Amino acid sequence: MTTRIAIDCMGGDHGPSVTVPAALHFLKAHPGVALVLVGREESIRPLLEGVGESERLRVVHASEIVAMGESPAMALKNKKDSSMRVAVNLVKRGEADACVSAGNTGALMAISRFVLKMLPGIDRPAICTQLPTMQGHTHMLDLGANVDCGPEHLLQFGIMGAMLVSALEHKERPTVGLLNIGEEEIKGNEVVKAAADLLRDSDLNFVGNVEGDGIYKGDADVVVCDGFVGNVALKTSEGLAQMLAFFLKQEFKRNLLTKLAALVALPVLNNFKKRVDHRRYNGAILLGLKGISVKSHGSADSFAFGNAIGRAFDAVENRVLERISARMAQTAAATKAAPGA
Amino acid sequence: MTTRIAIDCMGGDHGPSVTVPAALHFLKAHPGVALVLVGREESIRPLLEGVGESERLRVVHASEIVAMGESPAMALKNKKDSSMRVAVNLVKRGEADACVSAGNTGALMAISRFVLKMLPGIDRPAICTQLPTMQGHTHMLDLGANVDCGPEHLLQFGIMGAMLVSALEHKERPTVGLLNIGEEEIKGNEVVKAAADLLRDSDLNFVGNVEGDGIYKGDADVVVCDGFVGNVALKTSEGLAQMLAFFLKQEFKRNLLTKLAALVALPVLNNFKKRVDHRRYNGAILLGLKGISVKSHGSADSFAFGNAIGRAFDAVENRVLERISARMAQTAAATKAAPGA
Repeated sequence: MTTRIAIDCMGGDHGPSVTVPAALHFLKAHPGVALVLVGREESIRPLLEGVGESERLRVVHASEIVAMGESPAMALKNKKDSSMRVAVNLVKRGEADACVSAGNTGALMAISRFVLKMLPGIDRPAICTQLPTMQGHTHMLDLGANVDCGPEHLLQFGIMGAMLVSALEHKERPTVGLLNIGEEEIKGNEVVKAAADLLRDSDLNFVGNVEGDGIYKGDADVVVCDGFVGNVALKTSEGLAQMLAFFLKQEFKRNLLTKLAALVALPVLNNFKKRVDHRRYNGAILLGLKGISVKSHGSADSFAFGNAIGRAFDAVENRVLERISARMAQTAAATKAAPGA
Repeated sequence: MTTRIAIDCMGGDHGPSVTVPAALHFLKAHPGVALVLVGREESIRPLLEGVGESERLRVVHASEIVAMGESPAMALKNKKDSSMRVAVNLVKRGEADACVSAGNTGALMAISRFVLKMLPGIDRPAICTQLPTMQGHTHMLDLGANVDCGPEHLLQFGIMGAMLVSALEHKERPTVGLLNIGEEEIKGNEVVKAAADLLRDSDLNFVGNVEGDGIYKGDADVVVCDGFVGNVALKTSEGLAQMLAFFLKQEFKRNLLTKLAALVALPVLNNFKKRVDHRRYNGAILLGLKGISVKSHGSADSFAFGNAIGRAFDAVENRVLERISARMAQTAAATKAAPGA
């Protein structure tokens, strides 16, 4: 069966100049996919490079664009014909299995939540992304959808994350860790302590607290945290990686000798760069909705945006949605059956 | 005038084998310092390498040791003759101007707070460290002393951080930023939003929100956050840096050719390593107390521990304590005088 993905072509810092080439490239590489390019026809069609519309490639016009800095509430209320909204609508109507946008995160979250609705048993959606670790990779959530979480939300994030990983990676019981700090006598704040109790009593493969450095050590397949902390951790990582890359470049550019060394080391440095390339990890899934909605980094280039499309494709192919909704009820029941176990 | 520093020689993963050589090296390099080595005499004296006691070097016996995993409350209650407690006592009694420990963070915080007491106008102590940025460096606090902060605490952290930087770096009005997330419509949780209002109304040079990546971009001289978030950001950074170093090494070790490239690039890589060496940033000051107490990383080696001693030395020499206490009253008054300004 063909997997159909709706693409908000107008979102992100670069809009169609990035999203359309990425879509065409993805289409070529994945015979099992059909794409719907959503946005201003006059901006999209000139970029199709002679590729005609077909069952596998449709253009759906949307007259408006949600701006990157726009208030999500305003975007939700006023921009009913935005490329973002139309793309999400396609998922809602069953004309697409997933949608991808590099646009305004808050707006995508608000629109996805309003249009697609929440899965039963889940109070709040969460943003989940894959991150590299020393041992492979991990998934972390929430990354910014929820700034004030209760313990029960963190439990739900744990369940959703575990189901995502079990679907995507065919792991029977992925490990789930709770992001916490170890420095303090009381080990974490009140919400996190209560969440640890809930996770321990659940049927998840809970491995306890994971400290910040444990994320990249690969201490757990799924790392759960509230959106404020998760967003800070993710952005801090981005900033540190940029700084280190900047310093490394500076050192290699220092003089003729170091420039020669750079030439010799170039293949190695390129391999290293490829390996830690954050673009490979682009594409965060909004979990907890009755539909797959994927958020690409706003600054994504064509390669990065292609990976976000790939993330949506994998989620659909591996039936992430069915897995989460089926287990929500089941896990909730198990948790209730064994209080304080 | 001589600056006198008490050193908890028993703390940290390595104890006297690291702390004593670091202390002797520091003593040699800084004619204006006098050190008091606190801990088990029988462990310290054999490491003095023939350096005799003098006005500049004393050994003070302490029979107990606070273990790294020990409960801070228990350490505070039961270990009255621990090296940590005795070192802090020396500061209290005016026999030292500052103390340094690589021991249990929670215990050092509890003991320092109990023995030294809080400065008037400050409700809670905060842990503050220096971090590198693309433009130089920044100071961040709190890093784990407070896991549930109110807005007024974040304001106090801002004041303390600004006074620290103004004392250490002779900056008249250091910039202060509030660690926040930008992804969400409401931009941050309730506490952070209220803290932003307080900081804006204060006489600090408040530059608004700083996102995670802004820490390393150098968006502010002082970055304020609660201890949970700060600790996660710091540990996440440690973990990412370790992973990147690990991957870089792996790539250079891949085969004969890459090993040759490593040889050629070695001087450059070493310069890079030196530049981002976290050991250079070792030594976090516990701010808000009536005395200077400095926490070294538990895993510090001699070089790193020496830097923590240096941090204490700089804080005393630059009259950080006087600066903070003088301005606390003044700034509190200014804040009250202009409510909602």
